Amino acid sequence: MRTHYCGDVNRSHLDQTVTLCGWAHRRRDHGGVIFIDLRDREGLVQVVCDPDRAATFATAEAIRNEFVLKITGLVRNRPEGTVNPNLSTGEIEVLAQEIEILNASAPIPFQLDDENLSETVRLTHRYLDLRRPAMQKNMMLRYQVSKNLRHALDEQGFIELETPMLTRSTPEGARDYLVPSRVHPGHFYALPQSPQLFKQLLMVSGFDRYYQIVKCFRDEDLRADRQPEFTQVDIETSFLNEQQITDLVETMMRRLFKTVLDVDLPDFPRMTWAEAMRRYGSDKPDLRVTLELTDLTDVMKDVDFKVFSTPANSPTGRVVALRVPKGSEITRGEIDAYTQFVAIYGARGLAYIKVNDVAKGREGLQSPIVKNLSDAALKAVIERTGATDGDLIFFGADTAKVVNEALGALRAKIGHERGFAEGAWKPLWVVDFPMFERDEEGNRWQALHHPFTAPADGHEELLSSDPGKALSKAYDFVLNGWELGGGSIRIHRQEIQSKVFQALNISAEEAQEKFGFLLEALQYGAPPHGGLALGLDRLVTLMAGAESIRDVIAFPKTQRASCLLTQAPNAVDEKQLRELHIRLRQQVQTQVEVEKVD
Amino acid sequence: MRTHYCGDVNRSHLDQTVTLCGWAHRRRDHGGVIFIDLRDREGLVQVVCDPDRAATFATAEAIRNEFVLKITGLVRNRPEGTVNPNLSTGEIEVLAQEIEILNASAPIPFQLDDENLSETVRLTHRYLDLRRPAMQKNMMLRYQVSKNLRHALDEQGFIELETPMLTRSTPEGARDYLVPSRVHPGHFYALPQSPQLFKQLLMVSGFDRYYQIVKCFRDEDLRADRQPEFTQVDIETSFLNEQQITDLVETMMRRLFKTVLDVDLPDFPRMTWAEAMRRYGSDKPDLRVTLELTDLTDVMKDVDFKVFSTPANSPTGRVVALRVPKGSEITRGEIDAYTQFVAIYGARGLAYIKVNDVAKGREGLQSPIVKNLSDAALKAVIERTGATDGDLIFFGADTAKVVNEALGALRAKIGHERGFAEGAWKPLWVVDFPMFERDEEGNRWQALHHPFTAPADGHEELLSSDPGKALSKAYDFVLNGWELGGGSIRIHRQEIQSKVFQALNISAEEAQEKFGFLLEALQYGAPPHGGLALGLDRLVTLMAGAESIRDVIAFPKTQRASCLLTQAPNAVDEKQLRELHIRLRQQVQTQVEVEKVD
Repeated sequence: MRTHYCGDVNRSHLDQTVTLCGWAHRRRDHGGVIFIDLRDREGLVQVVCDPDRAATFATAEAIRNEFVLKITGLVRNRPEGTVNPNLSTGEIEVLAQEIEILNASAPIPFQLDDENLSETVRLTHRYLDLRRPAMQKNMMLRYQVSKNLRHALDEQGFIELETPMLTRSTPEGARDYLVPSRVHPGHFYALPQSPQLFKQLLMVSGFDRYYQIVKCFRDEDLRADRQPEFTQVDIETSFLNEQQITDLVETMMRRLFKTVLDVDLPDFPRMTWAEAMRRYGSDKPDLRVTLELTDLTDVMKDVDFKVFSTPANSPTGRVVALRVPKGSEITRGEIDAYTQFVAIYGARGLAYIKVNDVAKGREGLQSPIVKNLSDAALKAVIERTGATDGDLIFFGADTAKVVNEALGALRAKIGHERGFAEGAWKPLWVVDFPMFERDEEGNRWQALHHPFTAPADGHEELLSSDPGKALSKAYDFVLNGWELGGGSIRIHRQEIQSKVFQALNISAEEAQEKFGFLLEALQYGAPPHGGLALGLDRLVTLMAGAESIRDVIAFPKTQRASCLLTQAPNAVDEKQLRELHIRLRQQVQTQVEVEKVD
Repeated sequence: MRTHYCGDVNRSHLDQTVTLCGWAHRRRDHGGVIFIDLRDREGLVQVVCDPDRAATFATAEAIRNEFVLKITGLVRNRPEGTVNPNLSTGEIEVLAQEIEILNASAPIPFQLDDENLSETVRLTHRYLDLRRPAMQKNMMLRYQVSKNLRHALDEQGFIELETPMLTRSTPEGARDYLVPSRVHPGHFYALPQSPQLFKQLLMVSGFDRYYQIVKCFRDEDLRADRQPEFTQVDIETSFLNEQQITDLVETMMRRLFKTVLDVDLPDFPRMTWAEAMRRYGSDKPDLRVTLELTDLTDVMKDVDFKVFSTPANSPTGRVVALRVPKGSEITRGEIDAYTQFVAIYGARGLAYIKVNDVAKGREGLQSPIVKNLSDAALKAVIERTGATDGDLIFFGADTAKVVNEALGALRAKIGHERGFAEGAWKPLWVVDFPMFERDEEGNRWQALHHPFTAPADGHEELLSSDPGKALSKAYDFVLNGWELGGGSIRIHRQEIQSKVFQALNISAEEAQEKFGFLLEALQYGAPPHGGLALGLDRLVTLMAGAESIRDVIAFPKTQRASCLLTQAPNAVDEKQLRELHIRLRQQVQTQVEVEKVD
């Protein structure tokens, strides 16, 4: 129907007749002439309707915002002084010769250029929200990213293979979404949390280099950067080691950023998990922030101050300092706000020292806690943090988990708020993860990545002798404090896989029941293999500079896992449930019936 | 680890040292030398292990089939007389210098080159089945097809946009797979049967050209060419008409076949649905088969033979002939088999006439039914079918539905079995579908495509005045008797959509409840739009010449919707069900518990 997209018309089309299709973005009357900004996915163009052409003008008068139009007209220069340099089409305008209204539009419930829309309104009318140029741009960027990644993977000999969506529930890790089976009463499929086991089997099959851009599912309580369904760029290779796989991904990422954003990513440094936790309290540190944590656990063992000495003497405790250069100007009120902030992560307080005059020793330090600390401890604090006059030092003292989470987050917050961040893009490989961590209750080991991750070379014995010391061949790709990808070399020998299951307290029977097919596959010539999964939603969010992953997903769910547009999830017919051999629990049933009557 | 893929080594590498990784496809001792056919995804290469190198030879002696090996060696010409022209690497061999066993393999449960494996064995050990060169080739072909289609769509300005997997249940059409919600007790998501409504909303959003290669789900009883989850190449455009959309798909298909198979598809003829049903008894006729049905309903109204006259006089009945040239050689036993075949489709018999001598009129026709037919009827049979001496004519007389299905299937079967098929690839567009068909009980109209399909121009009034006569702007892409794609121009005006819902006996309230968001979207400037969905599984099956769609899916389900590899679906913990606010029906619960104890 059209000859050009609106946003593509420019001076090269001067004096040509073009036909455009799009939406009336704005219509205004000015000096007896009607101006229509016609919009399509490529941009806006100004259409002028002259009263000389009576029929066309009459049609133009009937047009309201968001009407769908087909316009034929002549491209001409805009009059001098009316050129719009902000618009790709800003030098020209189209003199309308024919206008056809393809569809009318009722007044839309909000203005597309309203910057202060609630997310509820936006998601309820998502099809209108997606008309906004910013959202169009985000979706186009998302497509460019996945297209670019596919291209790069294809060039490296990867082939896309599809793995099943209706698969087996293996209650490890996060909670599964379940799908009741009609054909097998009482049995359920699970939606995949990742294609992990299938991609490993594809390596056993000899496909050598696999990828898939694929939906994965986790029924977890949602945070800002989580969705019940999310998209993963899933990669697996055979016969490559950790260095080769991370190099491959690094090259791909560098090319992606160059092609799509014209950004030269710096080299990706490699940092051990232990160093990241020690210096940043995080396994995904934002390296743009220059602040670091300073470990003080050893020097606080003997101080009188129980708040410090108790965790310092606990095997699971940690005491750290966070030096804020020139931080003595931080007000009491601001410190209170930071104290509330760390409380979110379980910290029961936020001790601090203002460094007024280092030369004066103890006297030069201002804080209620100074009197409780020995000279040796204070000296260590100043020396290790490198504090100078005018600095402020925050302290964290608790279990290592609480200290790392609280002070790690505080470091990032203060860093960004108070100007201790530099550089636009700071990528990082975090490596040498521990194989295991204690579960919440501290009773048993659980896999830090997943139970199919290979131990570091020479750490096979530690799996049984000292599991907490065993390192893995896992690696995470971190960018600006976001974990964008994680992967590992997998176990390809059955005896090692069995040892890991033992360390995780998974009995041979349980392992057989849940992962029997994998254990069996490992017997029949499994190649050395490994891979990685990139979170596409997060990657695009970062690249788009968007506030939320919901801004780069066409039809996202709310934090309550609802679709406000379609009202999913919804109540279903009793007949459907009966066919699936399930019923609602009594209490819920009554509730749903009441809702239906309402 | 490797320098080349096994299958890529050839004469250009003569005298070079290569390192290969792969599987011992076969190992044989011959004249004191060990030969290993090393296999990877690109093919096989022959490795020779000479007793001169003691360590390497010792390793080679330990190798069994399917061991994973890393082999470094020198490429050399095969001795004269041992060249294998069937192998891309058949001119050379690799003299092993170093062999490393990367992993051993237990004896695998079947031979990879066994052609007579049961599907149960293959699916249970799918990761081994996928090692077979034929399966590797199918998966590679599948990737080439999707890659080629993506490329073609991208070039045409289509962008891939992802639509949700967890969506709303709308019990139209096929049965939904449901997913219980943990956060919203008593509510359920549905897995999408297609992204239909979302892609229409994306057109309302102005994305103009959308595509997605996406999993869709139908909880239906499975046939040979059905899977609970299947992959669709989903396409939608704005501002294009039926001709433009079908042209675009046709161009894409022609290019796909040329690029991937080096096949020049012929032009795609267009045939109305009415003509397809009349001539072939099918809306997806296999045009390779040259046989056609001949309509006789009008001339059988007055015959004495009730088997013919009753359906001929029924408004829903049909009587047809299927002429088989030189079919008089078909034996009585073969006719019995054909009679059993049409019975599958509900036909209660299969009348026939052998045409011995046309010149003799009634006397020249051999059949128990001849005596029941008038001269006029017999004359019409001979004239309309164009039968000549030695032909055989089958008859179908029943409801049009039974006749079309039974004789349509018989036409294809006889055509292929008895040499009435010509040409390798016969594509076809079937167009001008009716808007509606009667439901199974004949009580109400249901949408032949789906309720969002636009009526043909000028047929808007028929929606209320005579729904059965209203044609739609739907089109199906048929290849060799397989429906590979279906689509339509959609309704973009709310008032037409409401009329269609009325014809379908969907009340305004029900429409609002189920499709309120679509009806609302149509108010706010919906552009004219339409699209199509291609079944990727079927397309690849045809292109691969595979017997079943299961042969082009890495991890398919059985006809009972089970995964034999992972044992999905399976029983889940009571705790998981409790969190989802559901319980098993009592009877089922007992059953599952008994199974668990077993």
